Amino acid sequence: MITIGDEVLAGDVVDTNRAYLGQRCRALGLAVIEGRSVRDRTAEIAAALREIGSRVDVCLVSGGLGPTTDDLTTIAVAELLGRTLVRDETVVEELRRRFAARGRELVPTNLKQADFPEGSEVLANPIGTAPGFWCDAADLGRAEGGPGPVVICMPGVPSELRRMMTEQVEPRLAQRYALQPVARRTYRLLAIGESTVQHVVDGLLRRDDSALPWSRVFVHYRARSPEIFLELEATDPELSARDLAAFDAPLCEAFAGKMYGIGSASLAARVVEALRAAQLSVAVAESCTGGLLGSYLTEVPGVSDVFVGGVISYANRVKERSLGVSAELLAEHGAVSEPVAIAMAQGVRERVGADVGVGITGIAGPDGGTVDKPVGTVFVAVAHGDRSRCLRLREPGSRAGVRHRSAMRALALLWEQLAERGSVDIADLDTDAPDPALFATHRR
Amino acid sequence: MITIGDEVLAGDVVDTNRAYLGQRCRALGLAVIEGRSVRDRTAEIAAALREIGSRVDVCLVSGGLGPTTDDLTTIAVAELLGRTLVRDETVVEELRRRFAARGRELVPTNLKQADFPEGSEVLANPIGTAPGFWCDAADLGRAEGGPGPVVICMPGVPSELRRMMTEQVEPRLAQRYALQPVARRTYRLLAIGESTVQHVVDGLLRRDDSALPWSRVFVHYRARSPEIFLELEATDPELSARDLAAFDAPLCEAFAGKMYGIGSASLAARVVEALRAAQLSVAVAESCTGGLLGSYLTEVPGVSDVFVGGVISYANRVKERSLGVSAELLAEHGAVSEPVAIAMAQGVRERVGADVGVGITGIAGPDGGTVDKPVGTVFVAVAHGDRSRCLRLREPGSRAGVRHRSAMRALALLWEQLAERGSVDIADLDTDAPDPALFATHRR
Repeated sequence: MITIGDEVLAGDVVDTNRAYLGQRCRALGLAVIEGRSVRDRTAEIAAALREIGSRVDVCLVSGGLGPTTDDLTTIAVAELLGRTLVRDETVVEELRRRFAARGRELVPTNLKQADFPEGSEVLANPIGTAPGFWCDAADLGRAEGGPGPVVICMPGVPSELRRMMTEQVEPRLAQRYALQPVARRTYRLLAIGESTVQHVVDGLLRRDDSALPWSRVFVHYRARSPEIFLELEATDPELSARDLAAFDAPLCEAFAGKMYGIGSASLAARVVEALRAAQLSVAVAESCTGGLLGSYLTEVPGVSDVFVGGVISYANRVKERSLGVSAELLAEHGAVSEPVAIAMAQGVRERVGADVGVGITGIAGPDGGTVDKPVGTVFVAVAHGDRSRCLRLREPGSRAGVRHRSAMRALALLWEQLAERGSVDIADLDTDAPDPALFATHRR
Repeated sequence: MITIGDEVLAGDVVDTNRAYLGQRCRALGLAVIEGRSVRDRTAEIAAALREIGSRVDVCLVSGGLGPTTDDLTTIAVAELLGRTLVRDETVVEELRRRFAARGRELVPTNLKQADFPEGSEVLANPIGTAPGFWCDAADLGRAEGGPGPVVICMPGVPSELRRMMTEQVEPRLAQRYALQPVARRTYRLLAIGESTVQHVVDGLLRRDDSALPWSRVFVHYRARSPEIFLELEATDPELSARDLAAFDAPLCEAFAGKMYGIGSASLAARVVEALRAAQLSVAVAESCTGGLLGSYLTEVPGVSDVFVGGVISYANRVKERSLGVSAELLAEHGAVSEPVAIAMAQGVRERVGADVGVGITGIAGPDGGTVDKPVGTVFVAVAHGDRSRCLRLREPGSRAGVRHRSAMRALALLWEQLAERGSVDIADLDTDAPDPALFATHRR
């Protein structure tokens, strides 16, 4: 994998494309042996392509396909392979149409994005101006003999790269290399330490249940506080995704109450699904998170079935006016307190009109902490029926980290209560695994 | 920069260390020419070090310093340089102390972390068990002749790496290489195409104003829709940050109304600053963004001076009950319409109590679009005094993209109105430049 751009090396952007491509490659059964980032310099791009290209079957390249003078990937590939640039008139028309639709003028530099190294296959970009291309560089040769790699260039904009990778590149790769996917299963855990997770798994391993193929999987642990992802990856190509499902029951049992789902669905998506199953609506009242919890819930398509809305009660007078939190309660306990978090949850449920209310109030920092309530002190409450529950959190870290974990812990508290009602489902819902149809033709 | 670890290549973790080191290097005046990630294999680590090391003055290495069998960085450096491993008894004692303090036993594999290639300087790790080391590899030689690089190995845990880099590595680098920071200036633009930005800059370049040192800077363009960052980087070390400020006036003029700031402050931070200058408070009413605009505003520390709160009016009845949008207006124009966006902005201003109200209503997708109002149709409105303004957006892309750009465009509309009042300031506010004290001893 080669990512191109001064902004990547300068650290202006965190290179999420490499992680994404790494995951997709692994799922496809392609071993990633190196990731490299180079500057926007034709010679440096070409040198990296030559050196890496001599050792691999596939070079996945991202970035440098834009319209500006520092976008040099296409030129570098053409120069390295001694090919001319050919303008694709279909792409020119598409650019004209796209610019006209947005009422913008197509300037000459934009036409550069319609140029491709001779013999390339254009990869359409339905959501951006930079198409990608697939270029067979067999003539580049391989260090140990044999043909050179396929060079696949994609735009650096993550959403465009992701769509191009899944919709266009993966099917072509699967076809060309008769790829077999590597079975993999992710168990999503909450509010538990990484070492505790490993300790529990080690205990299961020692039990040596012959029905479970522990020796044929590799166990990964990945933390994104407050979540831990436990991943099983088949080390034996004969092991299918279905075989890995044998681990579900023992792992669910071992992590009862801590595991909120199997697969890629987020906690917010699981909560939305559980609310829908329970036919309950929810409203949120947010102080220190300022709308973050609402934004997490509304990331989920179709959330309008269960999410009504809420109040961002940043100022105390909004807590009073819009949520009915009494001035006395605020004065007696302070805005960051259990009674106020509960009053917010109850108030938003009543005022906005929902079955369940969630309240968050805390000190995200960097200022505002006291000895009793240091930065990172957050109360999250859930009000449902005539019961309310509240958690006091002591979150370390930055303002952003405190806010993220507070919103996630509020979702977790909601999930727990839905779990007690029996409304949650942790079944695998994966939709981002590579399309099995891609591989069908190669399966016995 | 070399980051080591299978987990980085597999995409299990996003490699934030590289972005961090890139930022620190740029600020120090070290040009980062390549970033590479390799697997946990001694031969592959050594090969990368040899190849990169033959072209650079400094190799910054992260990862592979842990106690487990797949931590191979130290061995790879020692093998490459033909040095023996020497155990550092001070580090052994420190490990013993650390393990005892946590009630854990020091197992033999942990002692590995006290071994360093002969002649290395140990870099203490005050917050973890893996010390780093600074190893002069002059004997490795350089491709074009001259001495080989300094190889600096740091742990892969981001918090440990960051602390080691700033506290121990940067002062040593500044001292050894008499570093001068590279002047750099970022101009932040909004709602303008990348190619238009370049077109305008090209026009300025052609004017060839001798007062402006265009020939001594490199121009970068970076898009994060709806923002474009235009960056000037001095290619001449004699050019100071103050010299680059000469570009401010012509660029501000050329991008009048499109440039919201110079430096690293976000649009939300600029809006908060302008509201504070104008002594105005703001409240938000969000439908399709579901709290995202509120979350962007509340990312800014100290926002409580100007941000009151708001209403997440996802369901129509919340638009009616909590914002006073009339049922007739909703029925006549639909929830996604200019009149409703304006009524939301006016309603939240009045109900929540603020000087300025912002309303967002739209169709983020993937479902809910119609022929008249396809997915991506969003209305953003700002109500202030007796005036209201509304924009109709047609945003392409994913649900997440539509939501992000809608919230950003709402901030932009607010910024524009504050600009018309003369309340905005686009001056450079950068505070994340490196400590000038590091460079003081080398300055004339």
